[in-house]
Amino acid sequence: MNYREESLKKHAEWKGKIEIVPRVEVDSREKLSLAYTPGVAEPCMAIHANPELSYELTRRWNTVPVITDGTAVLGLGDIGPEAGMPVMEGKCALFKAFGDVDAYPLCINSKDTEEIIHGIKLFAGSFGGINLEDISAPRCFEIERRLKEELDIPVFHDDQHGTAIVTAAALINALKLAGKKMEEVRVVVNGAGAAGIAISKYLMAFGVRDVTACDKIGIIVEGDTRFNPVQQELAKVTNRRRITGTLADALRGADVLVGVSGPNCVTKDMVRSMAEKPILFTCANPTPEIPPQDAKEAGAFIVGTGSSEYPNQINNVLVFPGLFRGALDVRASTVNQEMMMAASRGIAACVKDEELRTDYVLPYAYDKRAHESVAEAVRKAAIDTGVAKLVK
Amino acid sequence: MNYREESLKKHAEWKGKIEIVPRVEVDSREKLSLAYTPGVAEPCMAIHANPELSYELTRRWNTVPVITDGTAVLGLGDIGPEAGMPVMEGKCALFKAFGDVDAYPLCINSKDTEEIIHGIKLFAGSFGGINLEDISAPRCFEIERRLKEELDIPVFHDDQHGTAIVTAAALINALKLAGKKMEEVRVVVNGAGAAGIAISKYLMAFGVRDVTACDKIGIIVEGDTRFNPVQQELAKVTNRRRITGTLADALRGADVLVGVSGPNCVTKDMVRSMAEKPILFTCANPTPEIPPQDAKEAGAFIVGTGSSEYPNQINNVLVFPGLFRGALDVRASTVNQEMMMAASRGIAACVKDEELRTDYVLPYAYDKRAHESVAEAVRKAAIDTGVAKLVK
Repeated sequence: MNYREESLKKHAEWKGKIEIVPRVEVDSREKLSLAYTPGVAEPCMAIHANPELSYELTRRWNTVPVITDGTAVLGLGDIGPEAGMPVMEGKCALFKAFGDVDAYPLCINSKDTEEIIHGIKLFAGSFGGINLEDISAPRCFEIERRLKEELDIPVFHDDQHGTAIVTAAALINALKLAGKKMEEVRVVVNGAGAAGIAISKYLMAFGVRDVTACDKIGIIVEGDTRFNPVQQELAKVTNRRRITGTLADALRGADVLVGVSGPNCVTKDMVRSMAEKPILFTCANPTPEIPPQDAKEAGAFIVGTGSSEYPNQINNVLVFPGLFRGALDVRASTVNQEMMMAASRGIAACVKDEELRTDYVLPYAYDKRAHESVAEAVRKAAIDTGVAKLVK
Repeated sequence: MNYREESLKKHAEWKGKIEIVPRVEVDSREKLSLAYTPGVAEPCMAIHANPELSYELTRRWNTVPVITDGTAVLGLGDIGPEAGMPVMEGKCALFKAFGDVDAYPLCINSKDTEEIIHGIKLFAGSFGGINLEDISAPRCFEIERRLKEELDIPVFHDDQHGTAIVTAAALINALKLAGKKMEEVRVVVNGAGAAGIAISKYLMAFGVRDVTACDKIGIIVEGDTRFNPVQQELAKVTNRRRITGTLADALRGADVLVGVSGPNCVTKDMVRSMAEKPILFTCANPTPEIPPQDAKEAGAFIVGTGSSEYPNQINNVLVFPGLFRGALDVRASTVNQEMMMAASRGIAACVKDEELRTDYVLPYAYDKRAHESVAEAVRKAAIDTGVAKLVK
């Protein structure tokens, strides 16, 4: 099927992938008086006396906006706020279908970091958490950092952490099959935007010691001022062997490639130069860094991509519905590293050891057990780390 | 029934009066590929090429936020943004139930006019129209004026115009029963906040020549600098007889009282001092300006209130669902005076001459025909005045 052409047709038919429905009846005088005036004055005054009651008396407890500025939408780049909305609506549909979260798509017409932070903060009292989406690097880092600091609700930039969480889950299971350990593998991350930088740091939290990040210019190495400030910061903890050169140089002897870059930048020869049983997560969308068939022919042990058209789809759909479900359930004040790592382990655990195959290292995105497993892991981690405001 | 107590209990059970549901299925690889990646890239690029297509390919065409700063919620005053949300959620439920409009509640944490205008504009690309709610005067005037000027989607401050529209509808029918004409009646509007000022101006557009507005200080008269600038501006077109004094002075010989003020500020003696067949719309919520029973005893011909507990509820629920339904259907670029007047006439026409009684001058809020009648009138007026971008 030509998904793109068919999708355009479908979108024109759907005229929106979500809608808002009442949870109350209003078809009589009595019902109106309870859901609206005069009765509604009482919950208003209760929240006025104690704003935390907005989580008990309105939908706030289950409500997350999916917010974009449209600057880094899919692999499409800066296409503008309105043009990002089909993706945001899609995420909202997935939020509800897989996490029972009421998510609402919002686009913001600004590329200014301070303006975006301020604009989101103005409306934050309407929500139980905030999902940032498709905001380009390096602004996304500052926007997320500041919102996390200044708000007491979970703030999550999915492109960074969603991708990192699902990649780590895939790596946990892939390494099991390859018989390798996190502490021992060499990992190359190609593409040092929002996702690549988050993945590099996150895998180190999981025990990986040898991470080398590459960008278009080449291998990111400490002291090379051609890289942007965030990349230079990353170079202080990655690439400790201080190798220089191109992606091909980085891949020589590497165990794992995580690609979050662009189409067809990896060759068969590069794959052949990697260590034994190489693992390739080539997640560029819609066209991966190397066609999976080519990677396999060149000796790849496990290949994952961002696409649903191949095995091992590394898709952050596996993350965000369950992660927010868990965080909202315990009214977490933030999303911390422990909650994210718990989510990775929760996803990985959904494929049992006896089910693991080189073409099945992750549960399917539409597997409801996976989302419940993430939610449960996140709830527990939030409680264990003391950020849960609601412990039943 | 004690609506307030019961309502609080119900709100705690409901945990939200609206929710967001998917309109698409995502339970297979194929369905995910159409609603989300990779297929979704195509509608994104189509909107990028032509932002107007956001009305065709996303839910924007049917989407209206209900936005408050929480400064003038019901009769409760400035109770804060979060505390206004039960009202906003209630309106969203009514929007869908009566107008099939997807409305979403948002509270904004600012009382600064410029900050509110700017904050709303940042997110305007997400919506097909904007409903402002429970924002206190005089800021609400400037906020609405500027947003109307700077955005090309319908912007509507319900407290002003919704109330004015339904009041005019009630007056059209009440005057029929009383055998009086708009051009001949003396109208007193008590309470010169957002609603009172809008009602005063709006009734003049309907032909009323003699409107006198009162506020706590007394009768608003040209040149009296004790009144706020918006009230002084109003005094240039109202109270042409330049009477001064109190509400009691204003009511002497008046045909109509429209009260949007506070509880129990009108006495039986004041009613007795009015013209023959006096019409009283005492809309203060939750307690009217005079108990309807007292008004009747003092000779009131027709009494309407803001409450569902008495006959003739003058409730803007009769307005906003149909008004936005109509405006969205034809993709109106604004809500103009003609569309509002059409809405008033649409509501009034729902009670046929032979059905009109002193205790039945307006259709019931839950009467679906009323909302359809408003929508149809508004669609037509938008097309007739050339503000409809979509004429099928």
